[in-house]
Amino acid sequence: MRLRFAGTGDSAQVPCFGCDCPACQRGRLLRSHRREPCCGELVVDDCLVLIDAGRTDLAERCERQRPAAILLTHYHADHVQGLLHLRWGCGEPIPVYGPKDPQGCADLHKNPGILDFQPGLKPFRPLALGRLTATPLPLNHSKPTLGYALSDGASRIAWLTDTVGLPGATERFLCEWRPDALVIDATHPDSHRIPRNHNNLSMALEIIERLSPSRAWLTHISHELDAEAMRAPLALPEGVELAADGLEILF
Amino acid sequence: MRLRFAGTGDSAQVPCFGCDCPACQRGRLLRSHRREPCCGELVVDDCLVLIDAGRTDLAERCERQRPAAILLTHYHADHVQGLLHLRWGCGEPIPVYGPKDPQGCADLHKNPGILDFQPGLKPFRPLALGRLTATPLPLNHSKPTLGYALSDGASRIAWLTDTVGLPGATERFLCEWRPDALVIDATHPDSHRIPRNHNNLSMALEIIERLSPSRAWLTHISHELDAEAMRAPLALPEGVELAADGLEILF
Repeated sequence: MRLRFAGTGDSAQVPCFGCDCPACQRGRLLRSHRREPCCGELVVDDCLVLIDAGRTDLAERCERQRPAAILLTHYHADHVQGLLHLRWGCGEPIPVYGPKDPQGCADLHKNPGILDFQPGLKPFRPLALGRLTATPLPLNHSKPTLGYALSDGASRIAWLTDTVGLPGATERFLCEWRPDALVIDATHPDSHRIPRNHNNLSMALEIIERLSPSRAWLTHISHELDAEAMRAPLALPEGVELAADGLEILF
Repeated sequence: MRLRFAGTGDSAQVPCFGCDCPACQRGRLLRSHRREPCCGELVVDDCLVLIDAGRTDLAERCERQRPAAILLTHYHADHVQGLLHLRWGCGEPIPVYGPKDPQGCADLHKNPGILDFQPGLKPFRPLALGRLTATPLPLNHSKPTLGYALSDGASRIAWLTDTVGLPGATERFLCEWRPDALVIDATHPDSHRIPRNHNNLSMALEIIERLSPSRAWLTHISHELDAEAMRAPLALPEGVELAADGLEILF
Protein backbone atom coordinates (compact mmCIF):
# COMPACT_ATOMS: atom_id res chain seq x y z
CA MET A 1 0.00 0.00 0.00
CA ARG A 2 1.30 3.48 -0.96
CA LEU A 3 0.15 6.64 0.79
CA ARG A 4 0.72 10.08 -0.67
CA PHE A 5 0.09 13.21 1.37
CA ALA A 6 -1.65 15.23 -1.35
CA GLY A 7 -2.31 18.11 1.06
CA THR A 8 -1.21 18.78 4.66
CA GLY A 9 -2.60 22.23 5.45
CA ASP A 10 -5.54 23.55 7.40
CA SER A 11 -8.45 25.48 5.87
CA ALA A 12 -6.34 28.67 5.50
CA GLN A 13 -3.54 26.71 3.77
CA VAL A 14 0.09 27.84 3.55
CA PRO A 15 0.55 30.49 2.33
CA CYS A 16 -2.54 31.98 3.92
CA PHE A 17 -3.99 34.82 1.84
CA GLY A 18 -2.68 38.22 2.95
CA CYS A 19 -0.39 36.83 5.68
CA ASP A 20 3.22 37.93 5.96
CA CYS A 21 4.42 35.50 8.63
CA PRO A 22 7.72 33.71 7.82
CA ALA A 23 5.93 30.45 6.94
CA CYS A 24 3.61 32.17 4.45
CA GLN A 25 6.47 34.17 2.91
CA ARG A 26 8.45 30.95 2.49
CA GLY A 27 5.40 29.19 1.01
CA ARG A 28 5.07 31.94 -1.62
CA LEU A 29 8.72 31.54 -2.63
CA LEU A 30 9.06 27.76 -2.43
CA ARG A 31 6.33 25.51 -3.74
CA SER A 32 7.78 22.65 -1.66
CA HIS A 33 6.76 24.50 1.51
CA ARG A 34 3.16 25.10 0.55
CA ARG A 35 0.37 23.24 2.24
CA GLU A 36 -2.82 22.48 0.32
CA PRO A 37 -6.00 21.33 2.14
CA CYS A 38 -5.43 18.12 4.12
CA CYS A 39 -6.01 14.99 2.00
CA GLY A 40 -4.38 11.74 0.96
CA GLU A 41 -4.08 9.36 -1.99
CA LEU A 42 -3.92 5.67 -1.19
CA VAL A 43 -2.91 3.12 -3.82
CA VAL A 44 -3.53 -0.59 -3.26
CA ASP A 45 -3.12 -2.99 -6.23
CA ASP A 46 -2.97 -0.03 -8.66
CA CYS A 47 -6.36 1.08 -7.37
CA LEU A 48 -6.55 4.74 -6.22
CA VAL A 49 -8.66 5.70 -3.20
CA LEU A 50 -8.78 9.36 -2.17
CA ILE A 51 -9.06 10.42 1.45
CA ASP A 52 -10.90 13.75 1.33
CA ALA A 53 -11.32 16.02 -1.63
CA GLY A 54 -10.44 19.56 -0.58
CA ARG A 55 -7.75 20.23 -3.20
CA THR A 56 -9.25 22.70 -5.63
CA ASP A 57 -7.31 21.16 -8.55
CA LEU A 58 -8.91 17.79 -7.79
CA ALA A 59 -10.44 17.28 -11.24
CA GLU A 60 -7.11 17.92 -12.97
CA ARG A 61 -5.33 15.49 -10.62
CA CYS A 62 -7.99 12.84 -11.19
CA GLU A 63 -7.38 13.01 -14.96
CA ARG A 64 -4.06 11.19 -14.35
CA GLN A 65 -5.79 8.30 -12.59
CA ARG A 66 -9.51 8.09 -12.01
CA PRO A 67 -10.16 7.29 -8.33
CA ALA A 68 -11.93 4.00 -7.61
CA ALA A 69 -13.54 5.61 -4.56
CA ILE A 70 -13.43 8.69 -2.36
CA LEU A 71 -13.50 8.45 1.45
CA LEU A 72 -14.59 11.65 3.17
CA THR A 73 -13.80 12.44 6.78
CA HIS A 74 -16.45 15.19 6.89
CA TYR A 75 -18.23 17.87 4.88
CA HIS A 76 -16.32 21.04 5.80
CA ALA A 77 -15.44 22.91 2.62
CA ASP A 78 -11.67 22.40 2.94
CA HIS A 79 -12.28 18.63 2.80
CA VAL A 80 -14.81 18.48 -0.04
CA GLN A 81 -14.55 21.66 -2.14
CA GLY A 82 -12.81 19.84 -5.03
CA LEU A 83 -16.01 17.84 -5.55
CA LEU A 84 -17.96 20.98 -6.44
CA HIS A 85 -16.23 20.93 -9.82
CA LEU A 86 -15.32 17.22 -10.22
CA ARG A 87 -19.01 16.25 -10.10
CA TRP A 88 -19.74 17.86 -13.48
CA GLY A 89 -17.34 15.51 -15.27
CA CYS A 90 -18.12 12.59 -17.61
CA GLY A 91 -17.90 8.82 -17.41
CA GLU A 92 -18.61 6.17 -14.81
CA PRO A 93 -19.91 7.28 -11.41
CA ILE A 94 -17.33 7.61 -8.62
CA PRO A 95 -18.53 6.17 -5.29
CA VAL A 96 -18.14 8.55 -2.34
CA TYR A 97 -18.22 7.29 1.25
CA GLY A 98 -18.36 9.40 4.38
CA PRO A 99 -20.19 10.09 7.61
CA LYS A 100 -23.94 10.47 7.76
CA ASP A 101 -24.47 14.20 7.27
CA PRO A 102 -27.71 14.91 5.39
CA GLN A 103 -26.77 18.57 4.92
CA GLY A 104 -23.42 17.77 3.30
CA CYS A 105 -21.77 20.82 1.72
CA ALA A 106 -23.53 23.31 -0.55
CA ASP A 107 -25.72 21.43 -3.08
CA LEU A 108 -23.47 18.35 -3.46
CA HIS A 109 -26.13 15.91 -2.32
CA LYS A 110 -28.86 17.61 -4.35
CA ASN A 111 -26.80 17.80 -7.54
CA PRO A 112 -24.22 14.99 -7.31
CA GLY A 113 -23.40 14.74 -11.04
CA ILE A 114 -21.01 11.77 -11.52
CA LEU A 115 -20.52 11.38 -7.75
CA ASP A 116 -22.32 8.40 -6.28
CA PHE A 117 -22.82 9.33 -2.62
CA GLN A 118 -23.23 6.15 -0.58
CA PRO A 119 -25.31 5.95 2.62
CA GLY A 120 -23.50 7.34 5.68
CA LEU A 121 -20.95 4.89 7.08
CA LYS A 122 -21.62 3.19 10.40
CA PRO A 123 -18.84 3.69 12.97
CA PHE A 124 -16.56 0.64 13.42
CA ARG A 125 -18.26 -1.27 10.57
CA PRO A 126 -15.48 -2.10 8.06
CA LEU A 127 -15.86 -1.12 4.42
CA ALA A 128 -14.11 -3.28 1.80
CA LEU A 129 -12.65 -1.51 -1.23
CA GLY A 130 -10.82 -4.27 -3.10
CA ARG A 131 -8.00 -5.44 -0.84
CA LEU A 132 -8.25 -2.25 1.22
CA THR A 133 -10.37 -2.31 4.38
CA ALA A 134 -11.42 1.05 5.82
CA THR A 135 -12.99 1.04 9.27
CA PRO A 136 -14.73 4.33 10.14
CA LEU A 137 -13.77 5.83 13.52
CA PRO A 138 -15.78 8.63 15.13
CA LEU A 139 -13.75 11.78 15.87
CA ASN A 140 -14.37 14.97 17.89
CA HIS A 141 -15.15 17.84 15.53
CA SER A 142 -17.79 20.50 14.87
CA LYS A 143 -19.45 18.40 12.13
CA PRO A 144 -20.08 14.62 12.00
CA THR A 145 -16.55 13.36 11.33
CA LEU A 146 -14.91 9.98 10.76
CA GLY A 147 -11.28 8.92 10.83
CA TYR A 148 -10.31 5.66 9.12
CA ALA A 149 -8.40 2.56 10.17
CA LEU A 150 -6.89 1.49 6.84
CA SER A 151 -5.46 -1.95 6.19
CA ASP A 152 -4.35 -3.87 3.10
CA GLY A 153 -3.91 -7.06 5.16
CA ALA A 154 -0.21 -6.35 5.71
CA SER A 155 0.03 -2.78 7.08
CA ARG A 156 -2.23 -0.68 9.26
CA ILE A 157 -2.58 3.08 9.03
CA ALA A 158 -4.93 5.19 11.14
CA TRP A 159 -5.97 8.49 9.49
CA LEU A 160 -7.29 10.82 12.19
CA THR A 161 -8.41 14.21 10.88
CA ASP A 162 -10.15 16.48 11.83
CA THR A 163 -10.26 16.00 15.56
CA VAL A 164 -9.56 17.45 18.97
CA GLY A 165 -8.58 14.56 21.24
CA LEU A 166 -10.22 11.20 20.50
CA PRO A 167 -13.58 9.76 21.60
CA GLY A 168 -13.12 6.94 24.14
CA ALA A 169 -14.53 4.25 21.83
CA THR A 170 -12.16 5.26 19.01
CA GLU A 171 -9.16 5.23 21.33
CA ARG A 172 -10.12 1.79 22.68
CA PHE A 173 -10.52 0.46 19.11
CA LEU A 174 -7.09 1.79 18.13
CA CYS A 175 -5.38 0.43 21.27
CA GLU A 176 -6.60 -3.02 20.30
CA TRP A 177 -6.07 -2.61 16.54
CA ARG A 178 -2.44 -1.46 17.00
CA PRO A 179 -1.77 0.71 13.96
CA ASP A 180 1.72 0.63 12.40
CA ALA A 181 1.34 4.25 11.42
CA LEU A 182 -0.72 7.20 12.55
CA VAL A 183 -1.67 10.31 10.56
CA ILE A 184 -3.07 12.84 12.96
CA ASP A 185 -4.47 16.37 13.13
CA ALA A 186 -1.92 18.72 14.73
CA THR A 187 -3.26 22.02 13.47
CA HIS A 188 -2.19 24.42 16.20
CA PRO A 189 1.02 25.28 18.01
CA ASP A 190 0.84 24.90 21.80
CA SER A 191 0.41 28.67 22.17
CA HIS A 192 -3.14 27.87 21.07
CA ARG A 193 -4.04 26.51 24.50
CA ILE A 194 -7.70 25.55 24.45
CA PRO A 195 -8.44 24.44 20.90
CA ARG A 196 -12.05 23.59 20.15
CA ASN A 197 -11.98 21.61 16.92
CA HIS A 198 -8.39 20.57 16.25
CA ASN A 199 -5.46 19.24 18.27
CA ASN A 200 -2.58 21.46 19.17
CA LEU A 201 0.88 19.89 18.94
CA SER A 202 0.97 18.55 22.52
CA MET A 203 -2.46 16.96 22.22
CA ALA A 204 -1.42 15.18 19.03
CA LEU A 205 1.83 13.96 20.61
CA GLU A 206 -0.03 12.68 23.68
CA ILE A 207 -2.34 10.60 21.47
CA ILE A 208 0.66 9.23 19.56
CA GLU A 209 2.36 8.32 22.84
CA ARG A 210 -0.71 6.48 24.10
CA LEU A 211 -1.18 4.51 20.84
CA SER A 212 2.59 4.00 20.28
CA PRO A 213 2.66 3.34 16.51
CA SER A 214 6.10 2.76 14.90
CA ARG A 215 5.70 5.95 12.87
CA ALA A 216 3.44 8.96 12.93
CA TRP A 217 2.89 11.99 10.73
CA LEU A 218 1.41 15.28 11.90
CA THR A 219 -0.90 16.89 9.36
CA HIS A 220 -3.60 19.58 8.90
CA ILE A 221 -0.80 21.99 9.81
CA SER A 222 -1.51 25.72 10.18
CA HIS A 223 0.85 28.49 9.10
CA GLU A 224 1.19 29.32 12.80
CA LEU A 225 2.69 25.90 13.56
CA ASP A 226 5.00 26.13 10.52
CA ALA A 227 6.13 29.58 11.67
CA GLU A 228 6.84 28.23 15.15
CA ALA A 229 8.88 25.36 13.65
CA MET A 230 10.92 27.95 11.71
CA ARG A 231 11.76 29.84 14.92
CA ALA A 232 13.03 26.69 16.70
CA PRO A 233 12.90 23.03 15.65
CA LEU A 234 9.89 21.27 17.17
CA ALA A 235 10.77 18.69 19.82
CA LEU A 236 9.31 15.59 18.16
CA PRO A 237 9.79 12.04 19.49
CA GLU A 238 11.57 9.49 17.30
CA GLY A 239 9.39 8.24 14.46
CA VAL A 240 7.20 11.34 14.48
CA GLU A 241 7.46 14.00 11.78
CA LEU A 242 5.57 16.85 10.15
CA ALA A 243 3.94 15.62 6.95
CA ALA A 244 4.60 17.60 3.76
CA ASP A 245 2.65 17.95 0.53
CA GLY A 246 3.85 15.33 -1.95
CA LEU A 247 5.45 13.04 0.65
CA GLU A 248 4.96 9.39 -0.32
CA ILE A 249 5.22 6.44 2.03
CA LEU A 250 5.40 2.86 0.89
CA PHE A 251 4.03 0.38 3.42
CA MET B 1 -12.17 51.09 -17.19
CA ARG B 2 -10.41 47.79 -17.93
CA LEU B 3 -12.26 44.45 -18.02
CA ARG B 4 -10.45 41.13 -17.88
CA PHE B 5 -12.27 37.89 -18.56
CA ALA B 6 -10.72 35.85 -15.74
CA GLY B 7 -12.90 32.83 -16.56
CA THR B 8 -15.34 32.12 -19.39
CA GLY B 9 -16.46 28.53 -18.75
CA ASP B 10 -19.56 26.92 -17.35
CA SER B 11 -19.62 24.83 -14.16
CA ALA B 12 -17.98 21.83 -15.89
CA GLN B 13 -15.21 24.06 -17.27
CA VAL B 14 -13.04 23.24 -20.31
CA PRO B 15 -11.57 20.65 -20.17
CA CYS B 16 -14.42 18.88 -18.45
CA PHE B 17 -13.18 16.02 -16.24
CA GLY B 18 -13.19 12.69 -18.08
CA CYS B 19 -14.42 14.13 -21.39
CA ASP B 20 -12.71 13.31 -24.68
CA CYS B 21 -14.55 15.71 -26.99
CA PRO B 22 -12.29 17.75 -29.29
CA ALA B 23 -12.69 20.91 -27.16
CA CYS B 24 -11.65 19.13 -23.95
CA GLN B 25 -8.71 17.41 -25.67
CA ARG B 26 -7.56 20.80 -27.00
CA GLY B 27 -8.01 22.38 -23.56
CA ARG B 28 -5.73 19.74 -22.03
CA LEU B 29 -3.03 20.46 -24.58
CA LEU B 30 -3.31 24.23 -24.82
CA ARG B 31 -3.76 26.33 -21.71
CA SER B 32 -5.00 29.20 -23.92
CA HIS B 33 -8.09 27.14 -24.79
CA ARG B 34 -9.12 26.30 -21.23
CA ARG B 35 -12.13 27.89 -19.65
CA GLU B 36 -12.20 28.49 -15.91
CA PRO B 37 -15.48 29.31 -14.12
CA CYS B 38 -17.12 32.46 -15.49
CA CYS B 39 -15.86 35.62 -13.74
CA GLY B 40 -14.37 39.04 -14.45
CA GLU B 41 -11.88 41.55 -13.07
CA LEU B 42 -12.77 45.20 -13.48
CA VAL B 43 -10.19 47.92 -12.85
CA VAL B 44 -11.27 51.55 -12.46
CA ASP B 45 -8.73 54.10 -11.17
CA ASP B 46 -6.35 51.27 -10.12
CA CYS B 47 -9.12 49.84 -7.97
CA LEU B 48 -9.92 46.14 -8.57
CA VAL B 49 -13.52 44.90 -8.40
CA LEU B 50 -14.17 41.21 -8.98
CA ILE B 51 -17.31 39.98 -10.69
CA ASP B 52 -17.93 36.53 -9.20
CA ALA B 53 -15.44 34.36 -7.39
CA GLY B 54 -15.60 30.85 -8.81
CA ARG B 55 -11.93 30.50 -9.78
CA THR B 56 -10.46 28.04 -7.33
CA ASP B 57 -7.08 29.85 -7.38
CA LEU B 58 -8.82 33.05 -6.30
CA ALA B 59 -6.71 33.59 -3.16
CA GLU B 60 -3.46 33.29 -5.10
CA ARG B 61 -4.72 35.71 -7.76
CA CYS B 62 -5.83 38.17 -5.08
CA GLU B 63 -2.29 38.22 -3.63
CA ARG B 64 -1.23 40.25 -6.70
CA GLN B 65 -3.85 42.92 -6.04
CA ARG B 66 -6.28 42.85 -3.16
CA PRO B 67 -9.80 43.45 -4.48
CA ALA B 68 -11.58 46.56 -3.23
CA ALA B 69 -14.88 44.70 -3.52
CA ILE B 70 -16.48 41.54 -4.91
CA LEU B 71 -19.76 41.62 -6.84
CA LEU B 72 -21.56 38.27 -6.92
CA THR B 73 -24.16 37.40 -9.52
CA HIS B 74 -25.42 34.45 -7.45
CA TYR B 75 -24.44 31.72 -4.99
CA HIS B 76 -24.00 28.67 -7.22
CA ALA B 77 -20.68 27.00 -6.39
CA ASP B 78 -19.03 27.78 -9.73
CA HIS B 79 -19.52 31.50 -9.01
CA VAL B 80 -18.44 31.59 -5.35
CA GLN B 81 -16.26 28.53 -4.60
CA GLY B 82 -13.04 30.57 -4.49
CA LEU B 83 -14.42 32.37 -1.42
CA LEU B 84 -14.44 29.11 0.58
CA HIS B 85 -10.65 29.45 0.88
CA LEU B 86 -10.12 33.22 0.47
CA ARG B 87 -12.23 33.91 3.58
CA TRP B 88 -9.60 32.38 5.91
CA GLY B 89 -7.00 34.98 4.90
CA CYS B 90 -5.65 37.93 6.90
CA GLY B 91 -6.00 41.70 6.78
CA GLU B 92 -8.77 44.18 6.13
CA PRO B 93 -12.27 42.83 5.41
CA ILE B 94 -13.26 42.59 1.74
CA PRO B 95 -16.82 43.78 1.07
CA VAL B 96 -18.94 41.31 -0.88
CA TYR B 97 -22.14 42.41 -2.65
CA GLY B 98 -24.72 40.16 -4.24
CA PRO B 99 -28.37 39.20 -4.42
CA LYS B 100 -30.43 38.55 -1.33
CA ASP B 101 -29.99 34.80 -0.76
CA PRO B 102 -30.02 33.92 2.94
CA GLN B 103 -28.85 30.37 2.23
CA GLY B 104 -25.80 31.51 0.25
CA CYS B 105 -23.36 28.65 -0.46
CA ALA B 106 -22.15 26.13 2.14
CA ASP B 107 -21.28 27.95 5.41
CA LEU B 108 -20.03 31.20 3.82
CA HIS B 109 -22.56 33.39 5.59
CA LYS B 110 -22.12 31.58 8.91
CA ASN B 111 -18.33 31.67 8.81
CA PRO B 112 -17.41 34.66 6.62
CA GLY B 113 -13.82 35.13 7.87
CA ILE B 114 -12.40 38.28 6.20
CA LEU B 115 -15.37 38.55 3.85
CA ASP B 116 -17.78 41.33 4.72
CA PHE B 117 -21.09 40.19 3.20
CA GLN B 118 -23.29 43.25 2.63
CA PRO B 119 -27.10 43.16 2.73
CA GLY B 120 -28.65 41.77 -0.47
CA LEU B 121 -28.69 44.34 -3.27
CA LYS B 122 -31.99 45.86 -4.37
CA PRO B 123 -32.70 45.46 -8.10
CA PHE B 124 -32.13 48.63 -10.14
CA ARG B 125 -30.74 50.53 -7.12
CA PRO B 126 -27.23 51.68 -8.15
CA LEU B 127 -24.25 50.84 -5.96
CA ALA B 128 -21.29 53.25 -6.01
CA LEU B 129 -17.81 51.71 -5.73
CA GLY B 130 -15.49 54.68 -6.18
CA ARG B 131 -16.03 55.96 -9.74
CA LEU B 132 -17.67 52.68 -10.74
CA THR B 133 -21.45 52.43 -10.58
CA ALA B 134 -22.98 48.94 -10.56
CA THR B 135 -26.72 48.70 -11.05
CA PRO B 136 -28.12 45.25 -10.15
CA LEU B 137 -30.38 43.70 -12.80
CA PRO B 138 -32.60 40.68 -12.05
CA LEU B 139 -31.92 37.66 -14.30
CA ASN B 140 -33.73 34.35 -14.98
CA HIS B 141 -31.91 31.53 -13.19
CA SER B 142 -32.51 28.72 -10.70
CA LYS B 143 -31.22 30.79 -7.76
CA PRO B 144 -31.70 34.52 -7.02
CA THR B 145 -29.38 36.08 -9.61
CA LEU B 146 -28.32 39.59 -10.56
CA GLY B 147 -26.55 40.90 -13.63
CA TYR B 148 -24.87 44.30 -13.43
CA ALA B 149 -25.02 47.48 -15.47
CA LEU B 150 -21.47 48.81 -14.97
CA SER B 151 -20.42 52.37 -15.71
CA ASP B 152 -17.36 54.52 -14.96
CA GLY B 153 -19.14 57.63 -16.27
CA ALA B 154 -17.62 57.18 -19.74
CA SER B 155 -18.41 53.59 -20.81
CA ARG B 156 -21.28 51.23 -20.11
CA ILE B 157 -20.97 47.47 -19.85
CA ALA B 158 -23.83 45.09 -19.04
CA TRP B 159 -22.70 41.79 -17.43
CA LEU B 160 -25.51 39.27 -17.84
CA THR B 161 -24.72 35.85 -16.33
CA ASP B 162 -26.25 33.45 -15.44
CA THR B 163 -29.52 33.74 -17.28
CA VAL B 164 -31.95 32.20 -19.73
CA GLY B 165 -33.60 35.06 -21.60
CA LEU B 166 -34.08 38.31 -19.70
CA PRO B 167 -36.87 39.44 -17.35
CA GLY B 168 -39.01 42.18 -18.95
CA ALA B 169 -37.98 44.83 -16.42
CA THR B 170 -34.27 44.13 -17.01
CA GLU B 171 -34.69 44.29 -20.77
CA ARG B 172 -36.59 47.58 -20.52
CA PHE B 173 -33.87 49.03 -18.25
CA LEU B 174 -31.15 48.02 -20.72
CA CYS B 175 -33.04 49.38 -23.76
CA GLU B 176 -33.10 52.74 -22.08
CA TRP B 177 -29.59 52.55 -20.57
CA ARG B 178 -28.03 51.66 -23.97
CA PRO B 179 -24.92 49.67 -23.05
CA ASP B 180 -21.79 50.09 -25.19
CA ALA B 181 -20.89 46.47 -24.50
CA LEU B 182 -22.69 43.33 -23.46
CA VAL B 183 -21.25 40.26 -21.73
CA ILE B 184 -23.83 37.52 -21.91
CA ASP B 185 -24.44 33.90 -20.96
CA ALA B 186 -24.28 31.70 -24.07
CA THR B 187 -23.66 28.35 -22.41
CA HIS B 188 -25.24 25.92 -24.83
CA PRO B 189 -25.07 25.25 -28.57
CA ASP B 190 -28.41 25.45 -30.39
CA SER B 191 -28.66 21.65 -30.37
CA HIS B 192 -29.64 22.23 -26.72
CA ARG B 193 -33.13 23.35 -27.69
CA ILE B 194 -35.05 24.05 -24.52
CA PRO B 195 -32.48 25.25 -21.99
CA ARG B 196 -33.80 25.85 -18.49
CA ASN B 197 -31.16 27.96 -16.78
CA HIS B 198 -28.81 29.28 -19.45
CA ASN B 199 -29.10 30.75 -22.92
CA ASN B 200 -28.20 28.73 -25.94
CA LEU B 201 -26.32 30.56 -28.69
CA SER B 202 -29.42 31.75 -30.58
CA MET B 203 -31.08 33.08 -27.46
CA ALA B 204 -27.95 35.07 -26.57
CA LEU B 205 -27.70 36.47 -30.12
CA GLU B 206 -31.38 37.47 -30.10
CA ILE B 207 -30.86 39.45 -26.89
CA ILE B 208 -27.78 41.12 -28.40
CA GLU B 209 -29.76 42.04 -31.50
CA ARG B 210 -32.57 43.56 -29.46
CA LEU B 211 -30.20 45.63 -27.28
CA SER B 212 -27.79 46.45 -30.18
CA PRO B 213 -24.62 47.29 -28.26
CA SER B 214 -21.48 48.19 -30.31
CA ARG B 215 -19.72 45.05 -29.02
CA ALA B 216 -20.72 41.87 -27.26
CA TRP B 217 -18.89 38.92 -25.76
CA LEU B 218 -20.41 35.48 -25.27
CA THR B 219 -19.33 33.82 -22.04
CA HIS B 220 -20.13 30.94 -19.61
CA ILE B 221 -19.27 28.71 -22.58
CA SER B 222 -19.67 24.93 -22.32
CA HIS B 223 -17.31 22.40 -23.89
CA GLU B 224 -20.23 21.44 -26.15
CA LEU B 225 -20.36 24.94 -27.68
CA ASP B 226 -16.56 25.01 -28.06
CA ALA B 227 -16.68 21.61 -29.78
CA GLU B 228 -19.38 22.88 -32.14
CA ALA B 229 -17.26 25.94 -32.97
CA MET B 230 -14.36 23.58 -33.80
CA ARG B 231 -16.52 21.64 -36.29
CA ALA B 232 -17.60 24.78 -38.15
CA PRO B 233 -17.05 28.47 -37.36
CA LEU B 234 -20.05 29.93 -35.51
CA ALA B 235 -22.04 32.47 -37.52
CA LEU B 236 -21.62 35.50 -35.29
CA PRO B 237 -22.78 39.02 -36.24
CA GLU B 238 -20.18 41.79 -36.52
CA GLY B 239 -18.99 42.99 -33.13
CA VAL B 240 -19.91 39.73 -31.38
CA GLU B 241 -17.27 37.23 -30.30
CA LEU B 242 -16.65 34.32 -27.95
CA ALA B 243 -14.84 35.55 -24.84
CA ALA B 244 -11.64 33.76 -23.82
CA ASP B 245 -9.88 33.39 -20.49
CA GLY B 246 -7.34 36.19 -20.09
CA LEU B 247 -8.90 38.48 -22.72
CA GLU B 248 -8.60 42.14 -21.66
CA ILE B 249 -10.70 44.99 -22.97
CA LEU B 250 -9.90 48.63 -22.39
CA PHE B 251 -12.97 50.88 -22.43
